[in-house]
Amino acid sequence: MMKSWISFLDHTPSALGDLLTLAQRIKRGETDEHRIALAGKTLVMVFFNPSLRTRTSFEAAMGRAGGTAICLSVGGDAWMIETRDGVRMDGACAEHIREAAPVLGRYGDFVAVRTFAGMKDAAEDSRDVVIRGFEQLTGKPVINMESASEHPCQGLADWLTMREKLGETRGRRFVLSWAPHIKPLPMAVPHSALMAAAAAGMDITIAHPAGYGLNPRFIEAASQWSRAVGGSVRVESNQDACRDADIVYAKSWGAARHYGDAAVQQAELAALADWMITPAHLGPRTHLMHCLPVRRDVEVAADALDDPRCIVVDQAENRLWAQLAILTRLAGR
Amino acid sequence: MMKSWISFLDHTPSALGDLLTLAQRIKRGETDEHRIALAGKTLVMVFFNPSLRTRTSFEAAMGRAGGTAICLSVGGDAWMIETRDGVRMDGACAEHIREAAPVLGRYGDFVAVRTFAGMKDAAEDSRDVVIRGFEQLTGKPVINMESASEHPCQGLADWLTMREKLGETRGRRFVLSWAPHIKPLPMAVPHSALMAAAAAGMDITIAHPAGYGLNPRFIEAASQWSRAVGGSVRVESNQDACRDADIVYAKSWGAARHYGDAAVQQAELAALADWMITPAHLGPRTHLMHCLPVRRDVEVAADALDDPRCIVVDQAENRLWAQLAILTRLAGR
Amino acid sequence: MMKSWISFLDHTPSALGDLLTLAQRIKRGETDEHRIALAGKTLVMVFFNPSLRTRTSFEAAMGRAGGTAICLSVGGDAWMIETRDGVRMDGACAEHIREAAPVLGRYGDFVAVRTFAGMKDAAEDSRDVVIRGFEQLTGKPVINMESASEHPCQGLADWLTMREKLGETRGRRFVLSWAPHIKPLPMAVPHSALMAAAAAGMDITIAHPAGYGLNPRFIEAASQWSRAVGGSVRVESNQDACRDADIVYAKSWGAARHYGDAAVQQAELAALADWMITPAHLGPRTHLMHCLPVRRDVEVAADALDDPRCIVVDQAENRLWAQLAILTRLAGR
Repeated sequence: MMKSWISFLDHTPSALGDLLTLAQRIKRGETDEHRIALAGKTLVMVFFNPSLRTRTSFEAAMGRAGGTAICLSVGGDAWMIETRDGVRMDGACAEHIREAAPVLGRYGDFVAVRTFAGMKDAAEDSRDVVIRGFEQLTGKPVINMESASEHPCQGLADWLTMREKLGETRGRRFVLSWAPHIKPLPMAVPHSALMAAAAAGMDITIAHPAGYGLNPRFIEAASQWSRAVGGSVRVESNQDACRDADIVYAKSWGAARHYGDAAVQQAELAALADWMITPAHLGPRTHLMHCLPVRRDVEVAADALDDPRCIVVDQAENRLWAQLAILTRLAGR
Repeated sequence: MMKSWISFLDHTPSALGDLLTLAQRIKRGETDEHRIALAGKTLVMVFFNPSLRTRTSFEAAMGRAGGTAICLSVGGDAWMIETRDGVRMDGACAEHIREAAPVLGRYGDFVAVRTFAGMKDAAEDSRDVVIRGFEQLTGKPVINMESASEHPCQGLADWLTMREKLGETRGRRFVLSWAPHIKPLPMAVPHSALMAAAAAGMDITIAHPAGYGLNPRFIEAASQWSRAVGGSVRVESNQDACRDADIVYAKSWGAARHYGDAAVQQAELAALADWMITPAHLGPRTHLMHCLPVRRDVEVAADALDDPRCIVVDQAENRLWAQLAILTRLAGR
Repeated sequence: MMKSWISFLDHTPSALGDLLTLAQRIKRGETDEHRIALAGKTLVMVFFNPSLRTRTSFEAAMGRAGGTAICLSVGGDAWMIETRDGVRMDGACAEHIREAAPVLGRYGDFVAVRTFAGMKDAAEDSRDVVIRGFEQLTGKPVINMESASEHPCQGLADWLTMREKLGETRGRRFVLSWAPHIKPLPMAVPHSALMAAAAAGMDITIAHPAGYGLNPRFIEAASQWSRAVGGSVRVESNQDACRDADIVYAKSWGAARHYGDAAVQQAELAALADWMITPAHLGPRTHLMHCLPVRRDVEVAADALDDPRCIVVDQAENRLWAQLAILTRLAGR
């Protein structure tokens, strides 16, 4: 039984593996555990940042299990929430997390939060203050629907997809390849994909241009899990590993050293356009993954996305099943 | 059993008549077929354009049947969807219909789409590319919640309303009258009202100012159905037929020849202000219809709308029952 | 059985007390009356003004009872509703309340409306035209989710909270204290808190700066109820009564004499900053209430909000239970 779903690092690979098995059993129709756990329950979702895939898959999950999902858009045209302590609230924020979080906890059985990285200060993003604030204050299980540092719902869905496509994942080759974009993006998805592959015992290559390193905290954690489970982690500054990979996971992210300097980052992104994933990057049995949304012919070539080796739609579907498993385990506490 | 609900032209008048009968039986409480078909099912609605009546009636329909409805606003403050092939996605669109449509098809049992006419190019609007793209890519039944060319949910609700008010519709007089507006509107609603009246075997007059012809494809299709079912279609450039009509269906639309020239269209609309429907247009037993929303004292005089001959609220209610029938038949496949 | 839930003044203190008892029984799990009344029912919520707490608590209430809640944002990026008669609709409003209200009444079993005070003309705000228009036109029970003059859902939740904290409320000391803000706010919440305390038979002090009087209609009504039930109402221009109070209800509102002159009101608000509620205002057994959202260190000091005497989260939770009771009674008609 889980208290909250915030970070892969709060769990062990073996506990995550059990959760994955539950997701797979729900998907195959082998259990009704989710309906028993979630019927009549209420999920409150708080979006500090826009979302549609996450929102739709959570709403579909709760609906399928006989529960209710409520979506709140914070900082749209409605209230803004102050998350810092000791601030005199005479500005744009009409409400403080110290009131908002416990109140939402009274209305719902779970509170899910989306809050992107600020991408101004890598150390601050790494502390994941908003989602951890909700965890402390809400009084109910809190679900990370993508925070500054992690997107563990996506990570679990990714792992489920790899297990379905590869069967045994231990020792299989996983390449997380940086891809170009028109703007710098957060590192939450690559961090979670990395942790999922580590928990799955895969031989991991992280391929990115110089200066685009992920948060060392996650590299270290992934290496530790890999050592324990039987995989490996290495970092390369080229995409050579892609062709022999079982999985190529394409994803763009911004360089921490450019945080706060959008112009320099943007110029550099343009210069890195040839990191785009094409069919030529893929071996005959390589599966191509991406968390979506993906910009065609910018991050990934259109013909790679239209190729049968591309499994992004299965991957997106698995958000639904992974999240049903997460909600079921959180309800069980 | 239907595969999708995109266009009246995909069906025969007799199949549409059967659907209508189902709607009527659901409304009268004579069947539980909708609850059996839809309980636990999920409808995903994608709005490229705003809507409130359509959204509310679909949400109410799914709720009433024990299912779940999810509403997504595309191109609001969230993602924009690219619908063209072969475009390098370095602009405002973060997602392509080739990913979005199949993913939403995995989350829902049906995907409903609203996408207005561009009103730049009548030929392009006539092809209904966006809704047909969803039909091809989604992998689940697709529902047209108003596309560039048609609004078949409205058409079915209109037919239901006429059957309720007139009993036998065959040979009854239906006048689709153009009405003034402050801006040019799409032709989807008049096309669907026309097809509904044709399927119902009515004697149809389309009354509009010179140059405001509907898409000839629908005129021809309606004429063909009328010949088969026993009705007729004629076009007039005055509103004389209104006073002897059983039904006057008021609706504004823009002139195809002005597409792309908003200024000229707007000036002309102002000059056509006396096409506004008033109580004097209606005979003592004429029913006044409009799809709503309606601008009082612009399209239709306020005292005509407040007159007991006006049945727009019944017509709007019937959206709910028509859509329950459509969803039920789509679920049955 | 109630026809609508618009104003405390439409009911007697004793009928409101019965409603409160139902809320308490639902909260304690002593009855299933709400589930029997609301399962399969549909609530349509219309927001002319933003809301998140109100919306979330109503969605959670309907979900918990097995019903459906639909949220519409009017005057956001979608339709605007004209509420005046006799207006030629050639402006921003595409729809009239004379069509919108009855149509929503056909889709839902209840229609709930939020519509803030205009704060231009106190007499107009006092007439509550929009919510009364919906009451007249909708054909189903109408629920006030905060109108120009009242917020009776909040009032009932407040009364429930006081009954829980104090047991017998008769003769207990209730201070409604004005508090500073960065902008003028409506009087709906203080009016409803006042009426709730009067119905509860409390000894009421309204404390506000000179010129910040509430609507005399509510002062008179509260005084009348107090005389009947055994309480009292007095008005003071200082906060001295707070320290001996059982309840301090902090709330900011604008001065009617400044309506339409935002600049003067804003300057004056700044000069009244020392009306902020601090721990020093509270006696050892005083409970601090506020309807939320609250601006920390503007309306109420952060350390007062973080004090165990502060019961704002319980108060917000009680919105859920109060609203379940209201919906249950409205369904029973």
